[in-house]
Amino acid sequence: MISAIRVLLGDRSYDIHVGQGLLAQAGTLMRPVLSSGSVFVVTDENVEPLHLAKLKDSLDAAGLDHHGVVLPAGEQTKSFAHLEALLDTMLDAGCERHTAVIAFGGGVVGDLAGLAASLLLRGVPLVQIPTTLLSQVDSSVGGKTGINTTQGKNLVGSFYQPRIVLADTDLLETLSPRELRSGYAEVVKYGLIDDPGFFLWLESHGKSLLAGNGRKRKHAVLTSCAAKARVVMADEREHGSRALLNLGHTFGHALEADSGYGELLTHGEAVSIGMLMAFELSRRLGLCPEEDVARLRRHLGQTGLPTALPERADMPWNAERLMEHFIRDKKVRDGKAVFVLARGIGKAFLSAEVPEDVLLAMLREATGEAAAAGTPGAGGAA
Amino acid sequence: MISAIRVLLGDRSYDIHVGQGLLAQAGTLMRPVLSSGSVFVVTDENVEPLHLAKLKDSLDAAGLDHHGVVLPAGEQTKSFAHLEALLDTMLDAGCERHTAVIAFGGGVVGDLAGLAASLLLRGVPLVQIPTTLLSQVDSSVGGKTGINTTQGKNLVGSFYQPRIVLADTDLLETLSPRELRSGYAEVVKYGLIDDPGFFLWLESHGKSLLAGNGRKRKHAVLTSCAAKARVVMADEREHGSRALLNLGHTFGHALEADSGYGELLTHGEAVSIGMLMAFELSRRLGLCPEEDVARLRRHLGQTGLPTALPERADMPWNAERLMEHFIRDKKVRDGKAVFVLARGIGKAFLSAEVPEDVLLAMLREATGEAAAAGTPGAGGAA
Repeated sequence: MISAIRVLLGDRSYDIHVGQGLLAQAGTLMRPVLSSGSVFVVTDENVEPLHLAKLKDSLDAAGLDHHGVVLPAGEQTKSFAHLEALLDTMLDAGCERHTAVIAFGGGVVGDLAGLAASLLLRGVPLVQIPTTLLSQVDSSVGGKTGINTTQGKNLVGSFYQPRIVLADTDLLETLSPRELRSGYAEVVKYGLIDDPGFFLWLESHGKSLLAGNGRKRKHAVLTSCAAKARVVMADEREHGSRALLNLGHTFGHALEADSGYGELLTHGEAVSIGMLMAFELSRRLGLCPEEDVARLRRHLGQTGLPTALPERADMPWNAERLMEHFIRDKKVRDGKAVFVLARGIGKAFLSAEVPEDVLLAMLREATGEAAAAGTPGAGGAA
Repeated sequence: MISAIRVLLGDRSYDIHVGQGLLAQAGTLMRPVLSSGSVFVVTDENVEPLHLAKLKDSLDAAGLDHHGVVLPAGEQTKSFAHLEALLDTMLDAGCERHTAVIAFGGGVVGDLAGLAASLLLRGVPLVQIPTTLLSQVDSSVGGKTGINTTQGKNLVGSFYQPRIVLADTDLLETLSPRELRSGYAEVVKYGLIDDPGFFLWLESHGKSLLAGNGRKRKHAVLTSCAAKARVVMADEREHGSRALLNLGHTFGHALEADSGYGELLTHGEAVSIGMLMAFELSRRLGLCPEEDVARLRRHLGQTGLPTALPERADMPWNAERLMEHFIRDKKVRDGKAVFVLARGIGKAFLSAEVPEDVLLAMLREATGEAAAAGTPGAGGAA
């Protein structure tokens, strides 16, 4: 059974389809929103052996001509070099203005292929078929595309909405537990932003969802996509409220950048620690009840997500160094970082008024440079 | 005296200001449409010694902080390598979401800086200050950005509208006669598309305009910008009628690509020959009166624009080779090239129904591979 959510954005409106066994119908589902019978599939080395044959069958069944490319898996692929090579491959393959680009993979494939689709001949149709929990609940919806630069993550990109998003929750079965948990951090985020009822549901069902319950996975993906769609419809280009989706991400991006986007922290793990930092910071500012911070820490911990900074072999974490990353963050305005804070679970809001000393003190405890005082901080030993 | 035209595109609407001595007021004119007091100026080695000091004075006078970069001049700068380096420079310079990018130069600077502005942090405000006739009447208005690839011109890019366009016609005084004529080809185009009265005016005043008459230059730039604005307002993303602006460009791009974007043909010269090819093709198809083709050839010739392919030292022109370029063109749909044809001066229209044999015969005469038969073709000796 496939469910659909409509993202209403004028002439850029589109549907998100969510369901089990959806991939077999992908060709038929996308055919009506394409402007030609030709598609170009971008995927990666992880997805190709697992799922590409099924997608191709479904394209064949719908009478769609397809070409494609298989990219190396991993965050390193979100680079200028890969963007240039991908566009070159698309042009050499004879892609035209009406050839649709299918992004078939996780966040890396979606962000890179989405950016390439937005730039190829100044924009060709884009179909997102996310294969990870992270991309199904977050990056495939809302039109953000991007690549990383030496200065940080996603600092180069575009807003470019897909024609359709197809999320087959059966594909999640091939994910490693770590990948699944990483995506789950973004699911938790939607509860934290403005849906305390969903957070409550996750407290009851998160563990069985992660363990493999297909019905619950579908519910979580649908609820997350609907939440994201609401935010995007209200503020497509992040002039204001869309920034709420960055809950935990200002911290998370800094952690990822500082540790070199490596194996130490996945994006979702960095967001998990980052969300807890945002709640801990809110608590220190007298905004968020202690019990909500504790409840968040408990839930993240129970689902196997990190609640403290991992040990580093290369060089120790450093609060001042993390601070420098915030200044680079896209959410900076006139030199001032904007943070997503919370008055409790389901009560997130934006603030550009975070005193530097409170922030630094919180970070120093998280990095272990200062001893945790009073209530254990985000980085305190759980 | 400065005149303004409003381009109405919803929340992407903006003004084009045209006038003599406008550069001194640039800072004051742009200040109200910027979202911060910080700008990043992109210019090139040609413009910098001539005009940059005046722009900086005007930014200082308006209280705008400015950084910037001076790029090498020339079409080679519209490359992936330069795009990457430019974005890198902007990020290193601390550009934020509200830092405006000022494209201060000709079409190359406008296209590259516009693309960079659309990609930097997923889009920062853009100001176009075109310094050539070509960019004042064409590339700075309408939001097309782009770079070239080995497969062709502008095959990678975006639609990204500026916040304001500032065209100082005094800057045209520093252009070489060849640059000026090249831009003039695009001015002529607006008459050919749908304004026979403007073409008539150009027949009377084109030569004195090129010779230096400031009042007439302003009139031509204003009329051209108004024409372009009308087309862009009707079809911002070129789903249909905007393609009329490509009159002469399908041929022109093929000529440029085939000759390596070198000194042999400027863009405007290629467009000049291309427009005449479009009219000649229309005549051969029984669509356009012979006298309109002759009138166009006469006017282009009288203003010093080429009406036939120049001699090539490297390798001879070849009709089949030119045909291959059309297939690569962005205007191709389902493998079929769309041409802008004309039923006469001021009566352009789109057609995907050009018989290949008629096209090839016209090209063979133009390249000198076949002798001109009957009425001299576009490529016949004038």
